[in-house]
Amino acid sequence: MPLVEELGEREIIEILFKCLEGMPDSPVPLGDDASAVDLGRGKLAVIKSDMLVGKTDVPPGMSLWQAARKAVVMNISDLAAKGVKPIAILASIGIPRGLTKEDIEQIGKGLNDGAREYGAYVLGGDTNEASDLVISCVAFGLCEKRQFIRRSGAKPGNFVAVTGLFGKTVAGLKILFKEVSAPPEMETSLVNAVLTPHARLKEGLALAKTQVVTASIDSSDGLAWSLYEISRASHVGFIIDALPIAQEVKAFAEARNLDPTDLALYGGEEYELVVTVKPRLWKRAEEALKKIGTPLTKIGIATKEPDLLLKIKEKTIPIEARGWEHFKMPVL
Amino acid sequence: MPLVEELGEREIIEILFKCLEGMPDSPVPLGDDASAVDLGRGKLAVIKSDMLVGKTDVPPGMSLWQAARKAVVMNISDLAAKGVKPIAILASIGIPRGLTKEDIEQIGKGLNDGAREYGAYVLGGDTNEASDLVISCVAFGLCEKRQFIRRSGAKPGNFVAVTGLFGKTVAGLKILFKEVSAPPEMETSLVNAVLTPHARLKEGLALAKTQVVTASIDSSDGLAWSLYEISRASHVGFIIDALPIAQEVKAFAEARNLDPTDLALYGGEEYELVVTVKPRLWKRAEEALKKIGTPLTKIGIATKEPDLLLKIKEKTIPIEARGWEHFKMPVL
Repeated sequence: MPLVEELGEREIIEILFKCLEGMPDSPVPLGDDASAVDLGRGKLAVIKSDMLVGKTDVPPGMSLWQAARKAVVMNISDLAAKGVKPIAILASIGIPRGLTKEDIEQIGKGLNDGAREYGAYVLGGDTNEASDLVISCVAFGLCEKRQFIRRSGAKPGNFVAVTGLFGKTVAGLKILFKEVSAPPEMETSLVNAVLTPHARLKEGLALAKTQVVTASIDSSDGLAWSLYEISRASHVGFIIDALPIAQEVKAFAEARNLDPTDLALYGGEEYELVVTVKPRLWKRAEEALKKIGTPLTKIGIATKEPDLLLKIKEKTIPIEARGWEHFKMPVL
Repeated sequence: MPLVEELGEREIIEILFKCLEGMPDSPVPLGDDASAVDLGRGKLAVIKSDMLVGKTDVPPGMSLWQAARKAVVMNISDLAAKGVKPIAILASIGIPRGLTKEDIEQIGKGLNDGAREYGAYVLGGDTNEASDLVISCVAFGLCEKRQFIRRSGAKPGNFVAVTGLFGKTVAGLKILFKEVSAPPEMETSLVNAVLTPHARLKEGLALAKTQVVTASIDSSDGLAWSLYEISRASHVGFIIDALPIAQEVKAFAEARNLDPTDLALYGGEEYELVVTVKPRLWKRAEEALKKIGTPLTKIGIATKEPDLLLKIKEKTIPIEARGWEHFKMPVL
């Protein structure tokens, strides 16, 4: 009988899903970034639950305030990708012995600040003793049924686009784990990307309003993995021909002899949006984000063939379906 | 700076609450058994999140199927106490290395079976690597705003009543932890109370419909603690003059020279309802439960004075505000 460490997270999820009876008429399939209940009158109640575990999700150098804030932000990021505004956060906390009263205050403030930053409130939760720090958050929001963006709507010919620039968090994690040191002028930016992530909430809401986005996901498991998830749910492939890599990642990669493309593709803990857009209506999506000051960058196109391909100059290479995966795949 | 193990769970919760900005016009105060968002048109969305941790919530002899089912049931029990029907369950799972594929299936089936038993569906979740088994569930439901039962509505003179009989779970835990052995004829019943708890959902829904219940809580932290929580939220005290103790608990206590009253009061992991009822309308509550085959037992009365008192024969003794508390108070 295989052990969980041989299975990896994706296979564990598949095993769990097979045990679950689906809700009839569920507005969102199992395995999308958030779950939903139909409230009638064209409204959905949307719920997301995601757990932060000290051992695997809190790198050295991350404070408890930052960890608690991140536990909230990673849930809000999933709502953002679905085009849903968060209203309420709940937090169930597993607390290891040895933490102090001040540590608890840092956790409480991190939860509150993470929620308030996005207009939500922490409404409740639960505390427990645990061997390792565990902060399991729930994000709850409401949306119009027709504005909820699934993973499964991408069509061949759709443009695929992203917010932001990639690669900073992997570089930041390498620095925090002291695997590689960074030239001092770029260290702060790379490390902060890991310690203080931001959810693309206003971008997700603006894109949902346009109704020209056919599929959406956040890049929390890495860009390559996000593309793979959309491709699997939508039965399309992707040809990526422009990777928006952060300037400091290019410099860091050059200084440390790393491949910047790898840093940008196979990262994780990065909370950008990865979306597909109807090509005829691309301008509408681009302009919606321009209005709020965020560039939406077209990085490629969806294809009928299910492959994930990267075109650099004249070369075409496969993008591997891997990224941050608990159990199997330590990020470093 | 005090450590969490010196603070205890209640104080930790107080520290966390002080860090949180309250949501304006929140329909339910922080610290009630479930949180709620006002949907307008007299409706509430109700959310509860409670975490099961292997080390503290899974006694020896409890299977993974039972643990996962319990993680669902304990959340549904809180919705039941508020008079809310669960629709959806989410589960974030922390999985220790060394579990097998079959173990994961047991967890998946336990989650599904726990939800389906109460008419709900598991809609999603999240898996992570963790040092100890952690199953953090969310229960989501909808209700009429006027039917949601808070902890804070008890008035002096209200009757206080419970479903079911008390003391079995503490006895069962003592047996499972091999602290005390049980005469074989009572072992199964006592142990099953721990391994396969039931939420009083149909009772909670029936009571909410009557609209004569002024406060409600489940007894998951023990009867004494539940009374204390209602007394604190409602600014009343209680005189308890009839403790419904299970027959097998009385026999177990006699055989093992334990105090049955202590077993019934200071337990935990028991999912009965503790409610206060307007005395004039008591019959209505009693009959609502009689119709579904559950006795509602009056155990005492709410008082203006904030004390918790137990009257046995001619003696009146204080009920201590203690029960199952993580960190400070191992149940055994």
